[in-house]
Amino acid sequence: METESKAYTGPTEVKEGNGRRMRFGELVLRVLALALTLAAAILLGVDKQTKVIPLTLAPNLPPLYVPATAEWHHMSAFVFFVVTNAIACSYAALSLLLTFANRGGKKGLAMMIIILDLVMVALLFSGNGAATAVGVLGYQGNSHVRWNKVCNVFGKFCNQVAAAVVVSLLGSIAFLWLVALAALNLQKK
Amino acid sequence: METESKAYTGPTEVKEGNGRRMRFGELVLRVLALALTLAAAILLGVDKQTKVIPLTLAPNLPPLYVPATAEWHHMSAFVFFVVTNAIACSYAALSLLLTFANRGGKKGLAMMIIILDLVMVALLFSGNGAATAVGVLGYQGNSHVRWNKVCNVFGKFCNQVAAAVVVSLLGSIAFLWLVALAALNLQKK
Repeated sequence: METESKAYTGPTEVKEGNGRRMRFGELVLRVLALALTLAAAILLGVDKQTKVIPLTLAPNLPPLYVPATAEWHHMSAFVFFVVTNAIACSYAALSLLLTFANRGGKKGLAMMIIILDLVMVALLFSGNGAATAVGVLGYQGNSHVRWNKVCNVFGKFCNQVAAAVVVSLLGSIAFLWLVALAALNLQKK
Repeated sequence: METESKAYTGPTEVKEGNGRRMRFGELVLRVLALALTLAAAILLGVDKQTKVIPLTLAPNLPPLYVPATAEWHHMSAFVFFVVTNAIACSYAALSLLLTFANRGGKKGLAMMIIILDLVMVALLFSGNGAATAVGVLGYQGNSHVRWNKVCNVFGKFCNQVAAAVVVSLLGSIAFLWLVALAALNLQKK
């Protein structure tokens, strides 16, 4: 009887050890996702650059020098990027609390967390795609539609946008990893 | 002994029935994902509009009328969109074969399919985000960076881009659903 009980305890302990390691990995990823999406939202949210640019009103008049400011809310793609990162960041904080609350391992709540993680992957990647598309246009312009590049003027602003996109991409990968980890975890059960 | 065997058969049959229904749902979703991403890639891939537009060389000369063509490969965001949809479409076809091949239910292969479905969600949503961001600029323009709207000229082209984005979004949701379904399936096991 004693040997039998020991034989059962062994694998359970290994399983529990694996579970604890997975739970720790999940917590680290959630904190990372929270920090990265927060950093991305702030990086673009505070991004602002003012430059004095020459404005030619007529070819025979000297140019007029006017100050121009580049800000995130001037471009709808950047607004979408900041909003998606803010949503993902708030959800990451909430999901940390929910994960702690769900130490008993309620299946319904765990499933809801996986689905919401997945929605965050979709939301963040679309925000990244939008910001990157506009960023590329800003750096290179497009001669076909006569959209001139603007990053030769607002270089600092553009570089900060690029940094925000990279940080947000890392945050999105953290969410993607969380979904993959959850699937792996469910499969092992 | 007979009652016991019957008691075990019942739930197994229900489980198998559920499993078969899930497998059918998965196949329908995969075929949908394949069709939608293929349609999106083709819709944008064949999108082309030529218009004769007036070009003012000097203010005291009459405008020069030149033909201008809008095509998907003129804009890097649209190229990315077509490429992501083509990748997702090819993968959907491959995954259909793999799902048929994996009727035995090998865990490793099933896990690989979930991870790749997840990667497709990320890829497609970033492509959608990029195409939408450029589409919005085309429809509305942006006065801050002096990018004029172009959809007043290339209306048909822009509408076809919008249709491709909607179709691709439905395809992306099919992949998202596939991941959610797989997680639900794993949890029930």
